[in-house]
Amino acid sequence: MSSGPPEDIKASCERVARAAAEAAPAIRALTGGERRSLLRDMASALRERTRLILDANAHDRVAAAGLSEAMRDRLSLDEERIAAMARAIEHIADQPDPLGGVVEGRILPNGIRLERRRVPLGVVLVIYESRPNVTSDAAALCLKSGNAVVLRGGREAAHSNRAIVDALRAPLNWRNMGGALGFVDTPDRGAIDELLRMDKLIDLAIPRGGPALMSAVTAAARVPVVKHDAGNCHVYVDQHLEGLEETAERIVINAKVQRPGVCNAAETLLVHRGVAERMIPRLTDALARSGVEVRGCERTRELAPRARPATEEDWATEYLALTIAVRVVDSLEEACAHIARWGSRHTEAILTASLLSAQRFTELIDSASVMINCSTRFADGGEYGLGAEIGISTSKLHARGPMGAADLTTTQWVLTGSGQIRG
Amino acid sequence: MSSGPPEDIKASCERVARAAAEAAPAIRALTGGERRSLLRDMASALRERTRLILDANAHDRVAAAGLSEAMRDRLSLDEERIAAMARAIEHIADQPDPLGGVVEGRILPNGIRLERRRVPLGVVLVIYESRPNVTSDAAALCLKSGNAVVLRGGREAAHSNRAIVDALRAPLNWRNMGGALGFVDTPDRGAIDELLRMDKLIDLAIPRGGPALMSAVTAAARVPVVKHDAGNCHVYVDQHLEGLEETAERIVINAKVQRPGVCNAAETLLVHRGVAERMIPRLTDALARSGVEVRGCERTRELAPRARPATEEDWATEYLALTIAVRVVDSLEEACAHIARWGSRHTEAILTASLLSAQRFTELIDSASVMINCSTRFADGGEYGLGAEIGISTSKLHARGPMGAADLTTTQWVLTGSGQIRG
Repeated sequence: MSSGPPEDIKASCERVARAAAEAAPAIRALTGGERRSLLRDMASALRERTRLILDANAHDRVAAAGLSEAMRDRLSLDEERIAAMARAIEHIADQPDPLGGVVEGRILPNGIRLERRRVPLGVVLVIYESRPNVTSDAAALCLKSGNAVVLRGGREAAHSNRAIVDALRAPLNWRNMGGALGFVDTPDRGAIDELLRMDKLIDLAIPRGGPALMSAVTAAARVPVVKHDAGNCHVYVDQHLEGLEETAERIVINAKVQRPGVCNAAETLLVHRGVAERMIPRLTDALARSGVEVRGCERTRELAPRARPATEEDWATEYLALTIAVRVVDSLEEACAHIARWGSRHTEAILTASLLSAQRFTELIDSASVMINCSTRFADGGEYGLGAEIGISTSKLHARGPMGAADLTTTQWVLTGSGQIRG
Repeated sequence: MSSGPPEDIKASCERVARAAAEAAPAIRALTGGERRSLLRDMASALRERTRLILDANAHDRVAAAGLSEAMRDRLSLDEERIAAMARAIEHIADQPDPLGGVVEGRILPNGIRLERRRVPLGVVLVIYESRPNVTSDAAALCLKSGNAVVLRGGREAAHSNRAIVDALRAPLNWRNMGGALGFVDTPDRGAIDELLRMDKLIDLAIPRGGPALMSAVTAAARVPVVKHDAGNCHVYVDQHLEGLEETAERIVINAKVQRPGVCNAAETLLVHRGVAERMIPRLTDALARSGVEVRGCERTRELAPRARPATEEDWATEYLALTIAVRVVDSLEEACAHIARWGSRHTEAILTASLLSAQRFTELIDSASVMINCSTRFADGGEYGLGAEIGISTSKLHARGPMGAADLTTTQWVLTGSGQIRG
């Protein structure tokens, strides 16, 4: 539709980022009530444009004919899914305001009143893949927390994302703040590198995706990054399992099977040799009955002959599918060493009746979440009571584990005096 | 002294970082009482080796003969300064333990007990210049918060830093944890780039220094960074100044003169035109009497003819010296726009009798600290009641403004259940 030569990638990214940076003070200046109204208007706009969004989604689905069924399912929208996206925005709208809270406050000995207040970050860049509902969730969470946002979605969903952004932006346009919802849809992946270099315009980048995206982001970024990386999650079955055999089976199945395609699903099962004879046949049979392919170490295969042999690659793999790697370990410490070597520091579970084992496991595991006698699948902002989440951080800085609207803020120190000077 | 070819820079950096990463779990496992004892032993070791450290410092001072007097002063050690370093370590040792605190905790609706606990980051890299006391402060703060540390000091202080590290490491060696205090002293600046790429071994990099170092760090880092950048701090004198003329003069002088070489000293003075006629002559005269060179905009120079003309470069400069830039502005909003354009988002002060101006300034200023009727010089961890500080963060993520031991930690979610699975 455009006339003249296509806009240079760098220039187009910079235009979007600059518009967001210029709109950021206006978003920051909205009251909590005004931000709530804005989000509710966005939800309404999404509902009103359902037909347009479904038409755009049909384009993406035609182009996606060659992709896997799982990918195509994630891409697909229908009236119910769009209604769910609108409800999610309203849910975020109605959460408590993440801004303005006084994180700490005191009167200093010299009489100055010190307050540390929660304020917006400024401009947040979200880089994500396939699922179009991330477009509305990310926009709503960033605006709820007083930030402008720049979205960079996956190519597969380009038409759907554009239609969703057009809908969401309407209530911003009425308020002369359209720049606060930026969207970069040039298909060239170089756009990501360009955006990640704009540390004068963008305050935080949140990449959500696989190892290839993470590695590219880490190499290119001048902008601060909080990663939402892979989850190579482990379940360790301890030797002290008296009375928990049934519980262990239920949790292992839940962690692996309930939703295998997500980052908090279990990928490797570690079993203490003291209970291997009892538990390996029981657990691998239950897994097989649930349709899970088992890949085991040599000792596992002695007890579960139908398991295929596991290689080092299996320890490193986030299957995101009905496959699990199983290893017998000699001790809790060996289990933790395995996790330290092969894990992604996302979420690990221990199943044990022993208080000492639970304590030791928690001390030794350097992951965002540790589960004691419950499923890895609970690693989720909604489950933790954080409200909607923008994702699950695998970074250690700023936000760790499920990341909600409050993690899209920073703090500002405000000191109110009456003429104090430093001696 | 070494035989054979010199070790490759990359290999030597990796050796130090790997030793730190391997020692990190042992430091993490120390109790708060054990970390306190370790730090007190380090303070004693520093005192015992005063003579050796002074000898090493003499080497550095000979080599520094060509540097500025300010640089040479910052580099110089004497018995009193080493005693002060030891006392600072003891002060950090006696601070409350930054680890183990439960940041939030609740019972989830399904009965799982959720706790978010404060835990160490792992390995912290500190890159700094000249002042040898940073060596002991940084080591003590990182170990106090349960982290291993890798130090990279300035070339000018290489001998002094090495002697200090040797002293501090002795109590770690007694405990077989010598690797937890890493020190990279190869003079090649390429060492910084190598360290900043080691995101598998290092969890956080803290660079403290000038714009050249910051820009190099931002470009090279794969490791997460919290910057301790320049402070181009502003004092804005509002039009509503009834009764505060004397206070304004005292604060301007304090902010500029009390210690001009530090990042929270004022560099630019902005004066509302409504009080310019009254305040510009008074303030510039007072500054001149304190030995400060004034560089003013055209309107300033009409009221203070002795001021030299200011250029755009003056608005951008962190003088760190007895020089100040002065500009007359038409409104509070223009002052804030000037600060947004030229400032470094460190610390800004407003001097005003108006509640509305104070509120508006705080809303519009996107800096780590805002001072209302007190000196910018208060932007300091000790003044804020944070205990000793590792520096003043100019990043927005993770830590903003004065950064204490608590900011060298992250959190871990621990969920304790009794067999819960996700439905």
